[in-house]
Amino acid sequence: MERNIYLHTVPLTQAVETLKAALDREALVGREDVDTQDAAGRVLAGPVFARYSSPTFHSAAMDGIAVRAKETFAAREGSPVRLRLGQGYAPVNTGHPLPAGFDAVVMIENVVQEGEDTVALEAPAFPMQHVRRIGEDIVATELLMPQGRRISAYDLGALLSAGIWQVEAFEPVRLAFIPTGDEVLDFMQRPEPKAGQVVESNSVMLCALARFWGLEARRVPPVPDNLEALEAAARQALDSDAHIVVIGAGSSAGSKDYTRTVMERVGRVLVHGVAAMPGKPSLLGVAQNGKLLVGAPGYPVSAVICFEELVRPLAAWLGRFDAPERAGLDVELTRKVPSKLGTEEFVRLAVGRVGQRWVATPLARGAGMITTLTRAQAMTRVPEQLEGLEAGATVRAELLSPMAELDRTLVIVGSHDNTLDLLANELMGLAEPVRMSSTHVGSMGGINALKGGLALCAGAHLFDPETGDFNFPFLAKYVPDQDITTVNLAIRHQGLILAKGNPKCIKGVADLAREDVRFINRQRGAGTRILLDHHLKTAGIKPEQVRGYDKEEFTHMAVAVNVLTGAADCGLGIYAAAKALGLDFVELARERYDLLIPTRFLDDPRIAALLAMVRSPEFQAKIRGQGGYETNLTGQIMRPGMGLEG
Amino acid sequence: MERNIYLHTVPLTQAVETLKAALDREALVGREDVDTQDAAGRVLAGPVFARYSSPTFHSAAMDGIAVRAKETFAAREGSPVRLRLGQGYAPVNTGHPLPAGFDAVVMIENVVQEGEDTVALEAPAFPMQHVRRIGEDIVATELLMPQGRRISAYDLGALLSAGIWQVEAFEPVRLAFIPTGDEVLDFMQRPEPKAGQVVESNSVMLCALARFWGLEARRVPPVPDNLEALEAAARQALDSDAHIVVIGAGSSAGSKDYTRTVMERVGRVLVHGVAAMPGKPSLLGVAQNGKLLVGAPGYPVSAVICFEELVRPLAAWLGRFDAPERAGLDVELTRKVPSKLGTEEFVRLAVGRVGQRWVATPLARGAGMITTLTRAQAMTRVPEQLEGLEAGATVRAELLSPMAELDRTLVIVGSHDNTLDLLANELMGLAEPVRMSSTHVGSMGGINALKGGLALCAGAHLFDPETGDFNFPFLAKYVPDQDITTVNLAIRHQGLILAKGNPKCIKGVADLAREDVRFINRQRGAGTRILLDHHLKTAGIKPEQVRGYDKEEFTHMAVAVNVLTGAADCGLGIYAAAKALGLDFVELARERYDLLIPTRFLDDPRIAALLAMVRSPEFQAKIRGQGGYETNLTGQIMRPGMGLEG
Repeated sequence: MERNIYLHTVPLTQAVETLKAALDREALVGREDVDTQDAAGRVLAGPVFARYSSPTFHSAAMDGIAVRAKETFAAREGSPVRLRLGQGYAPVNTGHPLPAGFDAVVMIENVVQEGEDTVALEAPAFPMQHVRRIGEDIVATELLMPQGRRISAYDLGALLSAGIWQVEAFEPVRLAFIPTGDEVLDFMQRPEPKAGQVVESNSVMLCALARFWGLEARRVPPVPDNLEALEAAARQALDSDAHIVVIGAGSSAGSKDYTRTVMERVGRVLVHGVAAMPGKPSLLGVAQNGKLLVGAPGYPVSAVICFEELVRPLAAWLGRFDAPERAGLDVELTRKVPSKLGTEEFVRLAVGRVGQRWVATPLARGAGMITTLTRAQAMTRVPEQLEGLEAGATVRAELLSPMAELDRTLVIVGSHDNTLDLLANELMGLAEPVRMSSTHVGSMGGINALKGGLALCAGAHLFDPETGDFNFPFLAKYVPDQDITTVNLAIRHQGLILAKGNPKCIKGVADLAREDVRFINRQRGAGTRILLDHHLKTAGIKPEQVRGYDKEEFTHMAVAVNVLTGAADCGLGIYAAAKALGLDFVELARERYDLLIPTRFLDDPRIAALLAMVRSPEFQAKIRGQGGYETNLTGQIMRPGMGLEG
Repeated sequence: MERNIYLHTVPLTQAVETLKAALDREALVGREDVDTQDAAGRVLAGPVFARYSSPTFHSAAMDGIAVRAKETFAAREGSPVRLRLGQGYAPVNTGHPLPAGFDAVVMIENVVQEGEDTVALEAPAFPMQHVRRIGEDIVATELLMPQGRRISAYDLGALLSAGIWQVEAFEPVRLAFIPTGDEVLDFMQRPEPKAGQVVESNSVMLCALARFWGLEARRVPPVPDNLEALEAAARQALDSDAHIVVIGAGSSAGSKDYTRTVMERVGRVLVHGVAAMPGKPSLLGVAQNGKLLVGAPGYPVSAVICFEELVRPLAAWLGRFDAPERAGLDVELTRKVPSKLGTEEFVRLAVGRVGQRWVATPLARGAGMITTLTRAQAMTRVPEQLEGLEAGATVRAELLSPMAELDRTLVIVGSHDNTLDLLANELMGLAEPVRMSSTHVGSMGGINALKGGLALCAGAHLFDPETGDFNFPFLAKYVPDQDITTVNLAIRHQGLILAKGNPKCIKGVADLAREDVRFINRQRGAGTRILLDHHLKTAGIKPEQVRGYDKEEFTHMAVAVNVLTGAADCGLGIYAAAKALGLDFVELARERYDLLIPTRFLDDPRIAALLAMVRSPEFQAKIRGQGGYETNLTGQIMRPGMGLEG
């Protein structure tokens, strides 16, 4: 068992500079002739000089008549100059060559046709008026574009107009990706992973990223953790036309060690470990044949950071282009972000506009969680010289979503319910789609977000045993100063989620105290946990009597998955979660799940769309279709003391 | 001859809304199954629910040992807990399943191996420490992505991890482009345009633009101005799988009229003319089979505006995605931009940072000049309710270049010289390339730009007959308050550019007064024009005696092209221009072409790169290689009174 420590981690920029110094890009990336019509995005390897002028002739810039300017000088309103067809004027259309002997064009709108072959002008024309001159746009033999220019769509128009049918360009940068690991399954086989196995997906994700930057990228099927097989795969990739060969580690540590060994067999390792989190176990090196070698970490977020912060700048440098830039936005952090001194940390953010503020909630930081990237609208960096960022701090975010999408994103924070997913999907089907960004931090977390002005809406189902009411007692206690409109989303059934067939014969809360029953709990602050505590208290059971009371999950579905896989015998959750996984369910309580919306946001178009959806009979039918929900209060504004009776 | 007036022009947004209301996108753009690995950029036609959880098992998040947390609670520094292999602990690597019965992982760094099968721990582990839980990332059956989501590279990772091998996506939006016009030549034939002919390039440019937005786009060979042929081509395109059929007008007016007629034969026209400049003669309609019909203007910049402002939003709406956004930047206009009330004007801008200011020079506005797009770094809009923008106004620019490139752009304004093109090309070949953005407004224009703080550098060759010196008398007069460093670029030869073989036997300035000699002049403020005026005065010739004195070109090469094509018999210019086109040359004068650099900018890295280049012997050899240049002063700092003697 090798200690997985990178003693010589270097900052990202230093890692990139080290490789730039070691690579010979002139030798590595060649030049080739490319047909102009296929050259968009390619980088010119040499200057381009125009072969043709544009226009190649003096031409009319307007529809009208060609004239001699000096013959029109006397023309005035009420005292026209008359010209005869042929010697005095000639009709021209836009783009037509100026007939010989003429030097100006009068727009047809300013020409009075007096007879078949006589016109009258009431204003003089100046020389070269409405004439496009020879070479006005492009002059033959002149420099049209310098070397190193990345050819834009517009450039294609200029190149073809100038008679350039081919250009000399640098080769596109090509990348080959080798996934590795005994435990990874090739998605091409459509596998079913067993415990200890994962579907290999980094190669697809990273190749797609690379293509987005303008690279050509391809993957090979996964190679098992076998030094000879891995070396053979690396040599084959190095013998191909790829300029960059990436060995993608599996998710286990063993394969990482092989990566370094293989890199040393086919070249030399220059960077082993970077001062970044995620992304630390990245390797960089140069192959014997001069190609760039990369060892990408196995965790998806680490691999993405490795690609975005190391491969992207190096590939752009090899290909002599600027990698696409992300738009920046100043956002306000909703939570503190601790960070390790000496390490640059990349934090994924859920970003949304709440009133006039752009607020950003840091997402979970596990490098293994790909959904922290798919759910994020932005990313921020904690520089290595900082020990973290404070809650409320304004930080620069790099946007992962287009600004237009961000403007349509509805930030909802609080308790999780499957109906929110239903809502998220339906809102995206609107003519003006609304994207829901929901962060699941439990009902109390949602109320706290409203308190801090960090969400447009919170989802909560907090039961107050003293009053028998929902949510209002908590709003009165925690956000007494805010005017909040409470709209019911649904009444739902909570109960014990049990293995199919209920093998342990669990009938109710009393069974949770049994020695042979392993429970899976929800996190502190979750309405479901408060409900559980209420039922335990009523039944006279102490938390320490419940095995698994200290094991927490954050969503109903996660609880159900624990039951499905046998990690627990039961958990408290909603019927929909049990139904989705084909599990048994013993109902314990009906409760009200409400949307809490600061009244000042009711006019926000995103909230308006949300309410319109919640109030539509079609949507309510879909809520009921999930099972375990009632919609007799759905869409209605709740008042204190209503409880479950609208 | 039809009057080319669009009586019912509508604002761009109204044109787009009109078409959205008339098109049935549900019927037009279908759905299809796409392999996940090929789905980046595609838009989901329905929700995706996870099939697998990720992880599918509790797994180790670190290399180390699996333990039972409760058996470690007593561990303290100096008072370790000892565990035995098998019953007490089990080695695990990152990603491995947590062995049954264990509930926490201790990092290998915190494990003291005491014997083959005994370890000591000096700190307790908490339950689920360093354990990735089942479904921590993705929970099977839960909504993974809603309908309408555009699939990112990251999303591919999440989809494959969740066992999603295919997704239902909307078809990519497909566009077919039909170039038209008797006068346009197909670049595929590698043609040589004669007067009245142009190389068709709009189709390639616009298809490349469309691809950049995510469309599939293809062109057909140009169709001549023949109603039946055009209708047949339109029907063929409408019968293909394209969702959008574009008829691209030729550069003459005739073909525009055909476009409307053909559109009416195969569908109906809903918009004929938009309140935009360029772009006004755009047409939009709906085909009988429900497809989007577009009539694109013939001038390239008009066609680009038609595509960017009409086709782009409509295609994005059809495909249900956000078109790529351009970064925005506030820039200061160097010149007034007049504009027509009621028309939205699109102004191309050369943008660069001068000191701390971002300055933007409006480029020529002719819709036929594709180089105004290739030379522009940004575009701005003059809203229809304004009559223009004032010089000095701060306006929002939409960037056409990446910000990183803009930061490396060196703004040089002033007289044109071929050596500047040489310089532009060499500067792009540096390891840290510098992009030169040069605006040719003559020497006096360059000095005015320095006066206004609008350029990092000006190129000038102003001869002062009274002192026999160059540039300094003008600097003293026009920018007395600025400290400007004058560095010589080259001494160059100016003379009369003549047709090959000098058929009119022009020997010198005296011949310019001849009746049979047609001259082509440079614009007011150009150093060359001042030189001409000096020589005319010395020879006792009045400007009105010179035929063509009032015909102006802006560059030496444009003057030479006039001579080459016979539009003029001679013009004053540099030897390099005559040589490039194989023309004859009669030397009149040697002059100093200097770079005028405000001294405060000497430390700017772009200026430093420029000066280093100018001072390199290799570059000076290239200057001399052009012919007509001397470099004995090149790179040296000039002082008043030096004249041509360094």
